[in-house]
Parts: sequence; C-alpha cells; structure tokens
Amino acid sequence: MELHGQNLIGNDVSADGQDTFHARNPATGDPLHPAVTDATNAEINRALEKAEDAFRIYRQKTPDEIAAFLERIGDEIVALGDALIERACSETGLPTARITGERGRTVGQLKLFAGVLHDGSWVEARIDTALPDREPVPKPDLRCMLIPRGPVAVFGASNFPLAFSVAGGDTASALAAGCTVVVKAHPAHPGTSELVGRAIIEAANACDMPPGVFSMVQGTSNRVGEQLVKHTFTQAVGFTGSLGGGLALFRLAMSRPEPIPVYAEMSSVNPVFILPGAMAERGEAIAEGLTGSVTLGVGQFCTKPGLAIIIDDDQGNAFMDKLRASFQAAPTGTMLHAGILSAYNKGVEKLATIEGVELSTLSEAEAAAIKTQARPCLLTTSGQTFIEEPELENEVFGPSTLVVQCDSPENMEAVADNFEGHLTATVHGTEEDLETYRGLVRLLERKVGRLIFNGFPTGVDVCASMHHGGPYPATLDGHFTSVGTAAIRRFARPLAYQGFPQSALPAELRDENPRGIFRLVNSKFTQDPV
Amino acid sequence: MELHGQNLIGNDVSADGQDTFHARNPATGDPLHPAVTDATNAEINRALEKAEDAFRIYRQKTPDEIAAFLERIGDEIVALGDALIERACSETGLPTARITGERGRTVGQLKLFAGVLHDGSWVEARIDTALPDREPVPKPDLRCMLIPRGPVAVFGASNFPLAFSVAGGDTASALAAGCTVVVKAHPAHPGTSELVGRAIIEAANACDMPPGVFSMVQGTSNRVGEQLVKHTFTQAVGFTGSLGGGLALFRLAMSRPEPIPVYAEMSSVNPVFILPGAMAERGEAIAEGLTGSVTLGVGQFCTKPGLAIIIDDDQGNAFMDKLRASFQAAPTGTMLHAGILSAYNKGVEKLATIEGVELSTLSEAEAAAIKTQARPCLLTTSGQTFIEEPELENEVFGPSTLVVQCDSPENMEAVADNFEGHLTATVHGTEEDLETYRGLVRLLERKVGRLIFNGFPTGVDVCASMHHGGPYPATLDGHFTSVGTAAIRRFARPLAYQGFPQSALPAELRDENPRGIFRLVNSKFTQDPV
Repeated sequence: MELHGQNLIGNDVSADGQDTFHARNPATGDPLHPAVTDATNAEINRALEKAEDAFRIYRQKTPDEIAAFLERIGDEIVALGDALIERACSETGLPTARITGERGRTVGQLKLFAGVLHDGSWVEARIDTALPDREPVPKPDLRCMLIPRGPVAVFGASNFPLAFSVAGGDTASALAAGCTVVVKAHPAHPGTSELVGRAIIEAANACDMPPGVFSMVQGTSNRVGEQLVKHTFTQAVGFTGSLGGGLALFRLAMSRPEPIPVYAEMSSVNPVFILPGAMAERGEAIAEGLTGSVTLGVGQFCTKPGLAIIIDDDQGNAFMDKLRASFQAAPTGTMLHAGILSAYNKGVEKLATIEGVELSTLSEAEAAAIKTQARPCLLTTSGQTFIEEPELENEVFGPSTLVVQCDSPENMEAVADNFEGHLTATVHGTEEDLETYRGLVRLLERKVGRLIFNGFPTGVDVCASMHHGGPYPATLDGHFTSVGTAAIRRFARPLAYQGFPQSALPAELRDENPRGIFRLVNSKFTQDPV
Repeated sequence: MELHGQNLIGNDVSADGQDTFHARNPATGDPLHPAVTDATNAEINRALEKAEDAFRIYRQKTPDEIAAFLERIGDEIVALGDALIERACSETGLPTARITGERGRTVGQLKLFAGVLHDGSWVEARIDTALPDREPVPKPDLRCMLIPRGPVAVFGASNFPLAFSVAGGDTASALAAGCTVVVKAHPAHPGTSELVGRAIIEAANACDMPPGVFSMVQGTSNRVGEQLVKHTFTQAVGFTGSLGGGLALFRLAMSRPEPIPVYAEMSSVNPVFILPGAMAERGEAIAEGLTGSVTLGVGQFCTKPGLAIIIDDDQGNAFMDKLRASFQAAPTGTMLHAGILSAYNKGVEKLATIEGVELSTLSEAEAAAIKTQARPCLLTTSGQTFIEEPELENEVFGPSTLVVQCDSPENMEAVADNFEGHLTATVHGTEEDLETYRGLVRLLERKVGRLIFNGFPTGVDVCASMHHGGPYPATLDGHFTSVGTAAIRRFARPLAYQGFPQSALPAELRDENPRGIFRLVNSKFTQDPV
C-alpha cells in the first residue's frame, strides 16, 4: 500500500492545502516519504459535516453491527502486516517487539469494546415502573439509558502510535458508544496514522457503515486541532498529551458558544513510596524494578514513576547504592522525536539546578544526538525541599526519576499531603507497613486515580476495573477513564423516557429485555424482564 | 426558635461582616426580620477549612452511619414544624400546601439517599481478579469503586426553598457521597435557610458527625459565592439557577489553578409537541393540561413548558381557541421576588416585540404589583419565525408560553432540529403518531435529557431512572443529573486499587462482599463473593 500523505475525509482523500511536512526517523534523523499535507479549514469542516450526517445513520445501527465493525477494524489493522510495524518503528524509534505488542493491545481493545456491545449492559439501563395510585401524585413510568453524544474529535498521542492513536482507546470507545469520529493524526507518525486510518475506512465500507463515520486530518499547525474543537458539530474531545496541549484545547472548548467536554489525560509523576518493611525484605529488587519501570520505553509512558519516596536511613542508603548502580547500567534509548528529547534534557537540567536537588547518577551508556537518544538519569532531594519547591512535582517525560529522601514517616506523609493530582501512586510495603502507614494511604487515595501495591505503575491493564484518570492535572476530570471499558461512558450521556409505549422504546428499555442486559429495575439489579 | 441571621460555620455562628440585608415577603412587600449578615471572606475560608478537616473524618464513616445522619436531618426538618412552613411561605409567596409538599419531597430525598447508602451498590464496584499466567504479561488484581471528591459548595435555588436549597438534592447527594458541604444560602429565603441549616447541624451533632461536615454562608453579594468557588479546598460545585449565574461560576471554576467540576442546571424551555392524532383525540384536554403546567407555581419551574409546537390547521385552530380561553381564565400569582417578576415582564415584552411574534392572550385576572403578581401570558409565532429568531428559544421564567404554529410536519421537524439543549421535550401523540413522527423523536433525543410522552414536563419524579440534565445550556454537562439517585455520582470519582491485600481494601471491594452489593466481577454483575 503506497502512502499518499492526504487527509481522509470520509471515503474521499483530499489535500487542498499548501502546507506540507515530513515525518522523520528519530533513530537516523532522516525524513520519511511522502510529504503530508496539513488539512485546510474547509477540509476539516467537510469531515465534521460528514461526521454529523453519518451520526444520524450510525446511531441507528444495532450493537451487534457496531461490534462487527470494531472487530473488522482490528482485522484490517492486522492485515496491514509488516508494513504497519515497519512504518511505526521508523516513525517512532520504538523497537519491533514493542510495536508488535502495541498492535496486539490495539486490536485487543477493539475486540474488548465489541464484547462490551455484545453484552450490552454498558448502557446503564434503569427502569422505574409507574405507580398510578401513589399519593400525593401518581408516579410515571420512567426509563433511562446512555445514548451517544454525537461526532467526537480524537487527538492521536505520540507515545502510543497505535494504542492511543488513530484506532486507539479513544476512537474505539467513541465508535462503540455510537459516536462518529474525526481523528487529528499526530504529526510525529503521519504514515502510521494513514495506514490505520485507511484500515478503518476499509472496515467501515465492508460493514456498510455510513461514509463519514470516520475521518482523519493531518497537520503540524495548531490551527487544525483548533478548528476541529471549535466546530459546532463536535460534541466531545478525546486527548492524551501534554498539560499545555490539553489546557489549550480545554480553554477553546469552554469558549465555544456551546461548551463541550474535553477528556484530556495530561500530566502525572506517579509517585512510588517504598516503606520500611518492604525496604528490608526486598530493597534491592525494588531498586531494579524501579529502574526498569522508569526506563521502560525510554520513560515515555504517562505512568512512568517520576518520584520515589523513601526514608533516609541505613536501609534507604543501601537502596540508593543499588539504585545508582542500576541507573549507571541502564541503556540509553531513542526517543520519539527530537522535540521530546530536547524537553527531557531541559527538564532534567531544570530540576538539577534547583537548590537542594542533586543530580545523583547518569547512565554510563553513550547517548548519540543523531539517534535522538536519551540517557537515564537519577536525581535526589529531601522531603523538605520537595515540599518547598512546587516545580519538583512537574512531569519530566523521559527516563528520569527523583528520589525524595524523607527524614521521618511524618515527613513522608507531609510530602504526600502536598501532592497535586496524579494518575497513580504506588506503595511498596508489607501488610504491616500498610497498617502503620494507613494515614499515608488515606492521603494518597485523594490524590490519584489508581493505587498500586507492590508493583509498578507502568503497565496499564485494559479491563473493566482499570481507572486511568486522576485529579487535575492528571486529567481535567478524575471522574472519567481513558483506558478500560468504562472509557465508553465519556462519549455517552443518559436520556430518560417518561411514559413511552413499549413499541417506541429502545430495545434496552423494553419490558421483555430482549437483549438480556443487566438493568436497575425498581432499584434492583436484574436481567429479568419487567 | 429565634432567627439570628448569622452564618453557620460548622458548630459556630458568626457575623463578622458589615453588610446586612433583609428578606422580603413578596406577597406584601414587607421586609422580614432579622437582618442577615453577608459572610466575610475570612468566614468563608473558615467554613472551607472546617469542611476539609471534617472530610478526613467523615469519609471514614460507614454508609450506615451516614444514612442515619441523612435520616436524622429529615427528622430535624420535620421537627421544625409550622415555623419552617410559615417562614418559607412568607419568604417565597408560595402557598402552604406547596411548601408542605416540598418539605415532604425534601425529607423523601434525604431518605432516598439513605436507602441508596444502605443498599450500597451505588459505588459501582468493579473487580477483575489476577491472571498470573496471562501472556504476554500477567494480569494484576484490579478493583475499582467510587470515592467522595471532598468538600462541595452548594448554591441554594430560589424556586425550591426546601427541595433545591439548603438540605435539597445537591446537599443530600453530596453528603451521601461522603463529601462535606458548604451551602451558599439563597438571599431570597435566608430565614428558611437558617432554620434548615440549624436542623442539619443538630442532626450532625446528634449523629456524632465532625463539626464542619456542614456549614452555611449568607450573602447578597456575588463575592460570597465567588470566594466559595475559588477556595482551594472546594472540590465540586452544585448549582441550580440562571444561565448567567451558572456560567459565571463555571468560568470562575475553570480559571482556578486546579479546575473543578461545576454541576449547573440552568436554562430550558421544555418544548411540547402536539401531534395530529393526539390533537384529534384530546386537543381540549391538552390545552387545559398545558395551561396548568405553564402556570403551576406561577411558572417558576425549570421544567415549565415555554414552547408548544403544533400544526397550523383546523385542529390546531380549535386547540388555540381552547388554549386562549384557558389562559384568559388562568389565575395570577405571587412570584418569588420582585427581581423575578421584573425579569418575567421584560422577557415577555421582549418576545412580543419580535417581528412575527404575537402576544395572543393575557390572563384576565388582576396582577397587583405590591403583591409581586405575574399574569399568565400566551404568545404565538410561526415555525419559520422561530427558526430565524434564536431569541425565541431563550427561557422566560414565569407563567408564559410561546406556541409555534408550523405549516407542515417537515416544518415541525425543522423547528426541532434547530433547538439547542433543553432539560425535557414532550410529545403528545397516538402510537400511530409516534410511527409517523419517528424522525422528530430521533431529533429530540439529541436535544434533551428527558422525553415525555402524553404528559407534562413539570413534576420531576425523584427516583433512579430520572434524568434531570440535558445538553448545554440546560446544564453544563448533560452526562449528570441533579434529581434522582444518580445525582450522587457528581460528587464521587472512581479509584482503582491494584494488587492490594484484602485487609487493606474497602469493604465494598473485598472478596467476601460483606455488604452484599452488586459488583461487576470479571465482567459479570453479581452479588456473590469472589
């Protein structure tokens, strides 16, 4: 399949614009063909008009039809074969094994949402039957379920060129909810995006979905994303990226004549607390595990642990010796693009110049600028300095972490109490530690969306119980998750039907429960008919 | 119980400020004693500091303890007896029967949320057990449930001095979620607010709840509400009121260093469509019912039908004759305060001056300005004019409605397609009408939070299946409801626990399911233990 570098406007390809750009292989610095054309505002408007027209048809499709579409997207992505893997590797510098694994995750997510639709209970159907004799007023028949919001704008993320990009979790959950989707491809991997975008359109046509159910626009200019968010037909936005980028889209969405929700997953340092019992039992193993988690994928995960908090005692010193040794031995790696590498180097430098922060260890491996390579880096500070310097809580995207050495358990709690919102916090401890540090865990519960015990935050399992979203600035609203089946809720809202005859109700709300879903009927969960 | 007009800061009463105001009886124009003192910023800060301290204790209370607290609040409100009824009547001009009924609704809401807590399933517990042998990576044990957000600011509404005010749905759902609450009392009924606020504090003390679990501040100045929303400890806002007021709070919340969600129920005209089959069968009854719904409570409901859409044919003319007659005969009524009456009169006047709009009928009853009385009013326009004049969709709060006379079914659909968001839409029809006008219903589904068939939108039942929230500008996010048990979700967010031992998990997430709640375990709903 030859890449064309054009925008995918429903079933049409279009490149009316003048501005073009090239992707670049970060491992070599070489530009990659073809030239890609920034979408014009007219093209973006056309994509939204088609998305709106398509929505009116798409929302009448049955859950099984939409499930088949999602599964077919997965099949079409797999059918792209090595061409996809190779292109993604060359656009991101990520190794083949990682991209192959990420393809599996992406296809798995699509199939997971297909399963959610087959099951059908995700619509949260609630039924309260009429009580005509109730005093002082009769109770009407009320039935409520989730319905799709409308066309959704999805922004591809750079760090997951498949799983959080064109056919990633946002697109999969929006399509599953019954929304149509216009993706803004990430300019760091336009070719990967085009391959996946074309696969989605293949699948749409094969499954008799309306043209415009999916479109994709390219661009390096902020204008492209802005036009997408400002368009009156856009009903919600999915975004994974930087705090600055998320806030810019959020402000734009709030300044529309009709504000729309922006589901933005932005910034998190994912603190890891290592408590004394765990330190005594397996400090060395934790030091190795932490190094692995920090440097995994060259530290380019939103759940990379950017803070480790320990007690500054003999055990803590032994741990630090081990940690320094494993950072010294950690390999360098190619980052996604030169901009990310430069931000990483500046971020580390900025931390290191703060008084009370020490640049403890750099990996001894060589980092070649031409290969966009980053060097793992370990910094240290005291609990007191951490509390006094809010900048120490800023995310540094890349393979670095800051160890906060606390002089007491109370100091450790004060560090936690001082946190802003994060996606995750991790506690390494024994069950006894959990008892002793109960107050710390209580504090952390308020600060994050996911608490991990004796593990590491990287590795975000895609399932019903995952919550990938935390208090600001981790996300704009910690109520919602961008990973796992609950992500579908972002693109739906409840609609109540009062007094409607059976024949005019959606299947999910009819007495006989033809889809056999779980429903809350007169305040009891049941799969039974009414 | 003597009113003191002071602010309730946890268990303390406080009136440090210089600015005072008096409530006024709208039915007489007389000021009501005592003078009420605007809260100072220092008092507001103290309320939030107490709310934060109290939250750390309150969130450890068991569901049954919180349920007992909610029930006790209801008992304390009832124990206020006639003093509450009389004060509320004199501050609002609403009749005794209405206030008595509203007290029942308020107490009923508190008991309903107590029931939600006893049941316990509202936390949406989800469990995915570990799969240590999964390839390519083991699956960790993940368990997720809703937890409270923290201190919540609640703004009392003027039009429901009990049910949407100090101990109304927002406060009840926030307390039920495990949040502490600071209420901004509505300045139109400060005495009613004080009585209810003191009842809540009585209940808190009787139930051993921490001081600061509830506070209430008074004020006519916008500063009071602004300070409440800006305070760093405030984690969410509940508001029912005007579009302008809701937007102002929203912008303030968004401009905080950490944005917080504002759940604002604001503006809705609640269109009522009368289809030909229903018109033929019972046009006269619908005309009477519509008049009753428009003038109920002097039109001061957020679900008042402000638009009726009919086909302009012989049937439609007969309907109009009947509607005019019933508006002529409709009684005037005292509005909540002079400001609302003045806005009503101006709103009607503004509509009537728009070209193509006719002021069709005014009630023949006298409206005495000294009694703050409003006159029911019927206006008419064409479908075409409605589509061309966006101002015709603005809410007029009071006993008026605008009939849109459409020249065809297509014109009727075009009117619906043109709508912005509303809380409700109503369709009067036969089952055959529903078939013929299926496209109209599909359009309305996208515009509102509740669709009513053969009824009227006033009368918002408080139950699990109610959804009282629609697309903007009805609310800021149609995902959430401010009425019914699902309102509790606004004040909670999910937290996932990964790999935690049983002993450190909340009861709701433990294997044995000690609370017997419904949980999604490995993607199946069940009350069984894991």
